Amino acid sequence: MVANRGEISLRIIRSAKEMGILTVAVFSEADRASPHVKAADEAVCLGPAAAAESYLSMEKIIRAAKDLGVDAIHPGYGFLSENAAFAQKVLDAGILFVGPSPESIAIMGSKLQAKTAVAAYGIPLVPGTDEPIRNVEAAKQIAGKIGYPVLIKASAGGGGKGMRIVEKPEDFEAQLERATSEAGSAFGDPSVFIEKYIDAPKHIEIQLIGDQYGHIVYLFERECSIQRRHQKVVEEAPSAILTPEVRKKMGEAAIGVGRSCNYVGAGTVEFLVDEQLNFYFLEMNTRLQVEHPVTECITGIDLVKEQIRIAEGERLSFSQDDLQINGHAIEVRVYAEDPENQFLPDTGTLTTYSPPKGPGIRVDDGFEEGMEIPIHYDPMIAKLTVHASDRESAIEKMKLALVDFKVSGIKTTIPFCEYVLRHPEFINGKFTTKFVEKHFKPSVLSPSFSEEDLQVLAGFAAFWKEQAEVKANATLTPVSGKMIASKWKSRKVQ
Amino acid sequence: MVANRGEISLRIIRSAKEMGILTVAVFSEADRASPHVKAADEAVCLGPAAAAESYLSMEKIIRAAKDLGVDAIHPGYGFLSENAAFAQKVLDAGILFVGPSPESIAIMGSKLQAKTAVAAYGIPLVPGTDEPIRNVEAAKQIAGKIGYPVLIKASAGGGGKGMRIVEKPEDFEAQLERATSEAGSAFGDPSVFIEKYIDAPKHIEIQLIGDQYGHIVYLFERECSIQRRHQKVVEEAPSAILTPEVRKKMGEAAIGVGRSCNYVGAGTVEFLVDEQLNFYFLEMNTRLQVEHPVTECITGIDLVKEQIRIAEGERLSFSQDDLQINGHAIEVRVYAEDPENQFLPDTGTLTTYSPPKGPGIRVDDGFEEGMEIPIHYDPMIAKLTVHASDRESAIEKMKLALVDFKVSGIKTTIPFCEYVLRHPEFINGKFTTKFVEKHFKPSVLSPSFSEEDLQVLAGFAAFWKEQAEVKANATLTPVSGKMIASKWKSRKVQ
Repeated sequence: MVANRGEISLRIIRSAKEMGILTVAVFSEADRASPHVKAADEAVCLGPAAAAESYLSMEKIIRAAKDLGVDAIHPGYGFLSENAAFAQKVLDAGILFVGPSPESIAIMGSKLQAKTAVAAYGIPLVPGTDEPIRNVEAAKQIAGKIGYPVLIKASAGGGGKGMRIVEKPEDFEAQLERATSEAGSAFGDPSVFIEKYIDAPKHIEIQLIGDQYGHIVYLFERECSIQRRHQKVVEEAPSAILTPEVRKKMGEAAIGVGRSCNYVGAGTVEFLVDEQLNFYFLEMNTRLQVEHPVTECITGIDLVKEQIRIAEGERLSFSQDDLQINGHAIEVRVYAEDPENQFLPDTGTLTTYSPPKGPGIRVDDGFEEGMEIPIHYDPMIAKLTVHASDRESAIEKMKLALVDFKVSGIKTTIPFCEYVLRHPEFINGKFTTKFVEKHFKPSVLSPSFSEEDLQVLAGFAAFWKEQAEVKANATLTPVSGKMIASKWKSRKVQ
Repeated sequence: MVANRGEISLRIIRSAKEMGILTVAVFSEADRASPHVKAADEAVCLGPAAAAESYLSMEKIIRAAKDLGVDAIHPGYGFLSENAAFAQKVLDAGILFVGPSPESIAIMGSKLQAKTAVAAYGIPLVPGTDEPIRNVEAAKQIAGKIGYPVLIKASAGGGGKGMRIVEKPEDFEAQLERATSEAGSAFGDPSVFIEKYIDAPKHIEIQLIGDQYGHIVYLFERECSIQRRHQKVVEEAPSAILTPEVRKKMGEAAIGVGRSCNYVGAGTVEFLVDEQLNFYFLEMNTRLQVEHPVTECITGIDLVKEQIRIAEGERLSFSQDDLQINGHAIEVRVYAEDPENQFLPDTGTLTTYSPPKGPGIRVDDGFEEGMEIPIHYDPMIAKLTVHASDRESAIEKMKLALVDFKVSGIKTTIPFCEYVLRHPEFINGKFTTKFVEKHFKPSVLSPSFSEEDLQVLAGFAAFWKEQAEVKANATLTPVSGKMIASKWKSRKVQ
């Protein structure tokens, strides 16, 4: 059973089917017509659209699983995937949980417990408190010792919620109050702690996979620094700037993090990396990541199949020495969001939906043309991944694939991704998590034209119209002005 | 300019665009609405549907190329791709030809010249005549010496035309006459020669690529033994049965074949392989092959981009030692043909056309839902390629992808490909070019059911209908009987 929805549910169902495993999908009333429901051998409606009454209802999911006699539950990402109580309930019901033990989830789910656990393995940490803040005055002293700017972070947090940057001492109390109240309402736990704020780091993460017999390997890194609202939009593997030495050091540190919580299955260790390639443990995600396809592309390993094999008690079928990086992969997330309006979610009907295809192009999606994008869940429509022999070719392939990705009816992050792929700082690889803040102005997506430009455009419009008429009866006559137009466009846009 | 149509035109346009090259498509009146026309920056209608008046008209293609000032012509496969006169005319017009020299094409285009050329390099050949047959009596004597069965083959031939197996001396004259007349009408050259007929060989070919400076490497093999009417339907890389030693020997022999005609660009050396893994040179194709995607999957190399770079005078950017096999890839060709009726071409409208997608799935096609399949050209609709970590996973991925490939309105080879992928002889890798003749009976695609089977099926039909109604309002109730049905189906079909 895949206790999830959309693209990740479909993706897991596909690997399971290839392994000859029968599959069960779950769905909410809003997802009745979703492709993941049709793809599974069996499907169960959990209830109303609200996640709390469907995809987050442990009780309903486990009841359905028991009714159908499922052998294993794969939680996907998001929803209940990092909920230790859910993992425990699954095991208590006599069902395999395709993921780590509830204990591993619990340790890494608490940022402070995680820090304590990994510190024992000598993993580099961002300087900060190692306990929740209990006393405002003591906290201010610690912040002073670490040096401003500092970051106040929710202990149970993720996704940027309950997180505040404090630039100077006089702002500390007010920001602490905000962070505490946000953490309380978002995670049901108001605990926060303090860390040195590293300005403009890179976000680079290591994919781990381990079996039940203590074997654990790293599948290299993913560079995920291009983020908006603390969430990733463009990811790639390998990173453009890591040296083989730093890659190895980070991989080995990640294995240490895995060992610190007896990790089994696929997991990801996130690091902040500064300009000198010093790296600091950020957190571990105890589940499959959204951006796992880039790792699959460069290693040739199907992470979902490996997760299932490990849950079944198989040994890892490869060692660290068997693994190597083949080419370069880039993924962009296509969200139903308006990049010209602060990336606010957009809803509506996918009037046109035509993803690109071709050599080295992979599309993971969960929608079809004509479907509504429901407002109840994460607004991601699709993940577009390209794989080529090197980074430059991958960038060119992605630029073309983005042009070929036709969506209408809703606003998407496609124009923003095109902007990123053409930006010199993305191309040279030196971008950081500050990329959007530093460079992106919504106005670049709707350029204003000069009087002269508009005249040229009008000329082209007339020319194209005429050529379209020529095309209807053309023989041995070029049928469009696109060749000249492309030259003109590339002069303007590049 | 891509002097071709359909999927290969689209595929070449895509790589060119990724390299920042402006593209020109050509089309016949029958292909006015084809995706390859829309994909190019410029498109030229060559004339009527008949290939002789459009895709085979050297004069029209070169005139259009000159009018538009194109820098290079890529001929794709089929049509003019192996026509030495065309290559020469392109060069004479001051345009780059993306392929080998007219001399290389001419040598390998004549089976007898090719044999003479490669014999000097010590490449193993099938025993036979090394000159065209001039005298029936002398030919009969040679056939007697080689030993029956023998094969009479058109010197200028390909694709099984002008080819006859002679089982015993008394049939020789009649078959010779037929082969000669077929060769004359198909290729304008009635010359034929004789070879020992190797019963049930494997067809295994080696992909070569060479630059203009004498560097030439092999990109491993493709196993293409599953053929109907002497044409490939299922291809894979690597072969399931080659040892690393034989692979190396065949690769080095293929390089010898390349050197024998000073080969530049991408080309393929075809071998027959017997049960003891002895291999014999069959022919060299001096162009891109239909089945090139499997090689791209396992090597990570974009063959079209390499072809273009080499035509531009670049050096090969990799050496033999840089190349290695990553995983396993299988391609099937989806033809508009009726496998239940001797694979005769079927025509009509693609009422439904929904190719599969997902990790490791590549689709190369040139049609869209709602389009007509024109009767004028090769009836291939699409190539479906899968890439996975090993052969077993690739087979499972292909089986699922074939189930997910939805086509209606015309008959296709999809059911036949499903048959092949499930056949024990395909699975164990020991199939030969005799596979179809030996195993395939059209009736296996329309199994007849026993009275008891039909009762069970009727029961399921009623159950599914009921469950579909349940689905409309279901909450926490499994919505279909598919899980039980799948179990049942797998018992019956596997």
